[in-house]
Amino acid sequence: VTAIRAGILGATGYAGAELVGLLLSHPRVEIVWATSEKFAGERLADAFPHLLGITDLKLESIRRLSGFPRVDVVFSCLPPASSMRLIPPLLDSGARVVDLSSDFRFKDPALFEALFGIPHACPHLLGETAYGLTELFREEVRGARLVANPGCFATAVLLGLAPLVRAGLVSGRVVVDAKAGLSGPGRAPRLETHFVEANRSVRALPDERSQGREAEIRLSLLFGATPEIVLVPHRIPLSRGLYASIYAEVPHGASRKEVLGEMGRFYEGSPFVRTTEGVPDVNAVTYSNYAGIGCTVERGLAIVFVAIDNLGKGASSQAVQNMNVMFSFPEGEGLAGRVMFP
Amino acid sequence: VTAIRAGILGATGYAGAELVGLLLSHPRVEIVWATSEKFAGERLADAFPHLLGITDLKLESIRRLSGFPRVDVVFSCLPPASSMRLIPPLLDSGARVVDLSSDFRFKDPALFEALFGIPHACPHLLGETAYGLTELFREEVRGARLVANPGCFATAVLLGLAPLVRAGLVSGRVVVDAKAGLSGPGRAPRLETHFVEANRSVRALPDERSQGREAEIRLSLLFGATPEIVLVPHRIPLSRGLYASIYAEVPHGASRKEVLGEMGRFYEGSPFVRTTEGVPDVNAVTYSNYAGIGCTVERGLAIVFVAIDNLGKGASSQAVQNMNVMFSFPEGEGLAGRVMFP
Amino acid sequence: VTAIRAGILGATGYAGAELVGLLLSHPRVEIVWATSEKFAGERLADAFPHLLGITDLKLESIRRLSGFPRVDVVFSCLPPASSMRLIPPLLDSGARVVDLSSDFRFKDPALFEALFGIPHACPHLLGETAYGLTELFREEVRGARLVANPGCFATAVLLGLAPLVRAGLVSGRVVVDAKAGLSGPGRAPRLETHFVEANRSVRALPDERSQGREAEIRLSLLFGATPEIVLVPHRIPLSRGLYASIYAEVPHGASRKEVLGEMGRFYEGSPFVRTTEGVPDVNAVTYSNYAGIGCTVERGLAIVFVAIDNLGKGASSQAVQNMNVMFSFPEGEGLAGRVMFP
Amino acid sequence: VTAIRAGILGATGYAGAELVGLLLSHPRVEIVWATSEKFAGERLADAFPHLLGITDLKLESIRRLSGFPRVDVVFSCLPPASSMRLIPPLLDSGARVVDLSSDFRFKDPALFEALFGIPHACPHLLGETAYGLTELFREEVRGARLVANPGCFATAVLLGLAPLVRAGLVSGRVVVDAKAGLSGPGRAPRLETHFVEANRSVRALPDERSQGREAEIRLSLLFGATPEIVLVPHRIPLSRGLYASIYAEVPHGASRKEVLGEMGRFYEGSPFVRTTEGVPDVNAVTYSNYAGIGCTVERGLAIVFVAIDNLGKGASSQAVQNMNVMFSFPEGEGLAGRVMFP
Repeated sequence: VTAIRAGILGATGYAGAELVGLLLSHPRVEIVWATSEKFAGERLADAFPHLLGITDLKLESIRRLSGFPRVDVVFSCLPPASSMRLIPPLLDSGARVVDLSSDFRFKDPALFEALFGIPHACPHLLGETAYGLTELFREEVRGARLVANPGCFATAVLLGLAPLVRAGLVSGRVVVDAKAGLSGPGRAPRLETHFVEANRSVRALPDERSQGREAEIRLSLLFGATPEIVLVPHRIPLSRGLYASIYAEVPHGASRKEVLGEMGRFYEGSPFVRTTEGVPDVNAVTYSNYAGIGCTVERGLAIVFVAIDNLGKGASSQAVQNMNVMFSFPEGEGLAGRVMFP
Repeated sequence: VTAIRAGILGATGYAGAELVGLLLSHPRVEIVWATSEKFAGERLADAFPHLLGITDLKLESIRRLSGFPRVDVVFSCLPPASSMRLIPPLLDSGARVVDLSSDFRFKDPALFEALFGIPHACPHLLGETAYGLTELFREEVRGARLVANPGCFATAVLLGLAPLVRAGLVSGRVVVDAKAGLSGPGRAPRLETHFVEANRSVRALPDERSQGREAEIRLSLLFGATPEIVLVPHRIPLSRGLYASIYAEVPHGASRKEVLGEMGRFYEGSPFVRTTEGVPDVNAVTYSNYAGIGCTVERGLAIVFVAIDNLGKGASSQAVQNMNVMFSFPEGEGLAGRVMFP
Repeated sequence: VTAIRAGILGATGYAGAELVGLLLSHPRVEIVWATSEKFAGERLADAFPHLLGITDLKLESIRRLSGFPRVDVVFSCLPPASSMRLIPPLLDSGARVVDLSSDFRFKDPALFEALFGIPHACPHLLGETAYGLTELFREEVRGARLVANPGCFATAVLLGLAPLVRAGLVSGRVVVDAKAGLSGPGRAPRLETHFVEANRSVRALPDERSQGREAEIRLSLLFGATPEIVLVPHRIPLSRGLYASIYAEVPHGASRKEVLGEMGRFYEGSPFVRTTEGVPDVNAVTYSNYAGIGCTVERGLAIVFVAIDNLGKGASSQAVQNMNVMFSFPEGEGLAGRVMFP
Repeated sequence: VTAIRAGILGATGYAGAELVGLLLSHPRVEIVWATSEKFAGERLADAFPHLLGITDLKLESIRRLSGFPRVDVVFSCLPPASSMRLIPPLLDSGARVVDLSSDFRFKDPALFEALFGIPHACPHLLGETAYGLTELFREEVRGARLVANPGCFATAVLLGLAPLVRAGLVSGRVVVDAKAGLSGPGRAPRLETHFVEANRSVRALPDERSQGREAEIRLSLLFGATPEIVLVPHRIPLSRGLYASIYAEVPHGASRKEVLGEMGRFYEGSPFVRTTEGVPDVNAVTYSNYAGIGCTVERGLAIVFVAIDNLGKGASSQAVQNMNVMFSFPEGEGLAGRVMFP
């Protein structure tokens, strides 16, 4: 097997670390360069001691990007509004790009500006960008030069909601109560994520960029209907994992069996989605690209439960899944079977 | 101060341990006897080493109940359907009773039978039982011989919902997404609560007696309106604590300020309820009788957040609060100021 | 009961928070002022939301110290080398002082300078300072104006080792392997104490100020013998608690029974020390002033296990215990019976 | 690549789950059968939901062992004294065996009997059994029909101690203070491993089979010297991981540089051992076959720190490493690069 050559922008956050781990053991990829502003000049294993003896890759500053060797694929794990300027020259060099940030998730540059407070730097690329929720947009991803990898909240909610929306089963407002692990906010230490504070902390985070997440979810449900979404993230004492409990009004006659049937049909041919008669649990999908989905229906309310790993299916392993699709590798290459318990 | 004399039925579960700790440091109570079937004949400190050197109390089997010395107050922490037979003779002996089980929470014996599958043993006592959500039913508790201490889920939801219901602000279905610590299911080891399984587990528990909890909440909202309640408990990796996120339809004009205003007025004179401009966190109420309440309102949806300690305000410290009210002690005696951080 | 008046220097670290909680519920103390540089001008409850509704105390900057009202006792929870300059004028004002920092723990100013790199500001006070390991130096504490509260490591090791040293049972080098919770390093966020990093982290910290700790332990064993101490702290995923496993060479004939006998005699009249036939556990002493001690002896090696709460007996509750002794209050006032489980 | 055929005895404990995960993604192995008494007749994914959609393997009772299809390699994860009877017929069928239990770890059947209280069922096989601490006994493993996979404590201690012992640097008693995660005691629920009890529990376990572990370590140091070992396991709130702090008397002149030099030489050509200038951390080796080793030397005491994953290098991944060596596969096949963070 000849390997494609990969570059990583922003390799020393948690999504970056996960991505590096996945690519290092992927049989068809070779990491050629990786950037980090904080650790520029040091080795990846200095930033992440778990990689000691596994890779000797040295980290570079993004300021030298123009001099980096040409690669076939670039993954960007940069913070919001950082990658949109860097991606056009990479595309021009012939690379295909999977952007894990939110820069290319919205077709409408005005919405981006409303959410992030600055104009979009490359509005002309928004049209051709594929939204990389692989199971929903596999065909678009296959042909794309540029894939916007979904956020972890949008991944969980869309996987749970799409089958119902397509089947016309959502009849009113959708409330999403999401419980998220602490790796989501990233590796920069803060009081809220200090072990002693966080270890016993459970609270809602109603103001944390939910507007952008709601917009991402709403716009990506490209099935005609666009239900109103209210998403409330919560912080719980967990490193990795995201659990979305989705409360959706459905027609009063709708049954659990019907909803489960729709889900089963929707995800036929999607081996990373596990629809189950029972209730999914985060601990069955941690360190993996799998999503667990279950549901219950009573009195006109469907409750859909989705469990993913926020750094896996919610970020880096889905980015690899998208790369696999883009390059016509088997979709599960480097991902299938990879899941850790306990 | 002369102390009243107390007995405890079922002292060796987690609620029992918490109650014992509270009563041992309560200036107006002396524990005279405590029962445990599992540890009968042993000392309390054998079951709970944290009490070593603090109390020499010996545990007795409930089978000897008739021979126990007379007491002024009995707390029952027995499993469901266990205390209803034992309480009448205790009342006859002149004791007043706080029952932490669900045996006396429903006025209607038929509902009890429907929920628990057996007929109620003392339907004649249901009428006089006060429902011990102290802040809502303080007057009933004051005069009562028998107080049914609320469940932890009902406590959290009622505290959050009552001000809105009284103000006529709830206009439709109420969805409660509750995140609960692992001490709730008790001290008996099970696979789901095994450290290695639970430490990374996040999942909904839609079938776990929610019907009874929903009924308890609905019936206790004695303000005319009885909104439809859907309650979904979730398990998260936490020992103590309960966080209820309550999604309630309100009239479209209702504002956050209005809702907060109602809450403030409702809990005037209730020092254990902390209504806050911000969002409450479990870690500010653990090991305490305090409840933190916050809310947000958008697009006709009020979202109320309530944080309590499931063993504190959700069980044992509320039982002590009720005892204080019943015996005309200061309501916060032995409770005020007691809260642990970090 | 008339309350004494207390001031707190550095009230917004974890030891400060614990101290405030203890003093607020202490029947003979009133907190008159408390300082914080980070939160000066704000209320204590702004820094520690768990105190909301419990105290309205406002925090002051230490720069205004000279204008603060006179108090009977001052607790200092300031960082190393910060309190030594502030304490003399407080003593002059008639206050008695319990210093939780390391500033007054060493009689020899040269040792202080060697450990902290700066000369001691008040060498003349070192002579009269009592070392506040209450169980060992109760009489010195009783009469003292100034008490140096021991560090948490020294507290655990001295409690475990003192009975053996006094009995002449320690015949060679002592190795201490200490496992400490993450509240020890304080409330300032760092990468190592970030939840996601720390939650699965177990490692030794051989370079973390152990030299000072070893000196503190060695010098405080005022029984003639000064065994060589090697102390290695370890970080484990725990908020509160310290577990010291002490490996001490003893004469080959020494038996477990003999060692336990010495311990029992040594701690007669010391209700906060629990010597046990079994093995102590951190979870039986958390949020308390209790210390659990057990031991085993085999092949000429005594292994003593000590469990304390690093913020309780290892810091703030021992400071209150010392205050109780200094002011001839009952030694356990505000402390006895206070322990939380689970 | 043609795959070898594998059978697993006792697949539904934690070591079994880890082994299954490793073998499912190993390019040269096919799992042909797996046994479980508790889940016989069910699928592996029923016992371990994280394997849903990954394998359809059905579990069989061990009572049908004689009818199972022939395999090339058998892994036994059975409890102590269970596999020794089953292994001879498997060997006769031509299979090679890696036994993860303690049944074949001791050459001397009398020692086995002393430790486990029953006579050894197959003493004639003890002589030919290779002790599978791969880095120390690679050559013996290569030719062996039967490999006794080391215990997790022995693995950590031997990796840390062997270089010093071989270099003649250990001059007296060795004390090992080991901190172990809660997956070690297995998947059967017990009070001590109940989340609510264990989450804050830190304690020594001096009586837990340490005698057998000490014997295993002592006997396996086949370099002439057999230092006296005192091993004290401790329980800490962690799912996976083992941290051994080894305190070994060395000649007074010995330096840290010298010890590190010995370690570096010893583990040349052993890619899974990471000797480091710094201090190892469990969180850099979790979910992996890597071992982190560091050391410090002062005043005639070498302190060696070893971090492994008790289910990885301490059990299942080392079993796979041994299989790789036995079948002349690359030693790191299916293992190299596999490590998870955070």
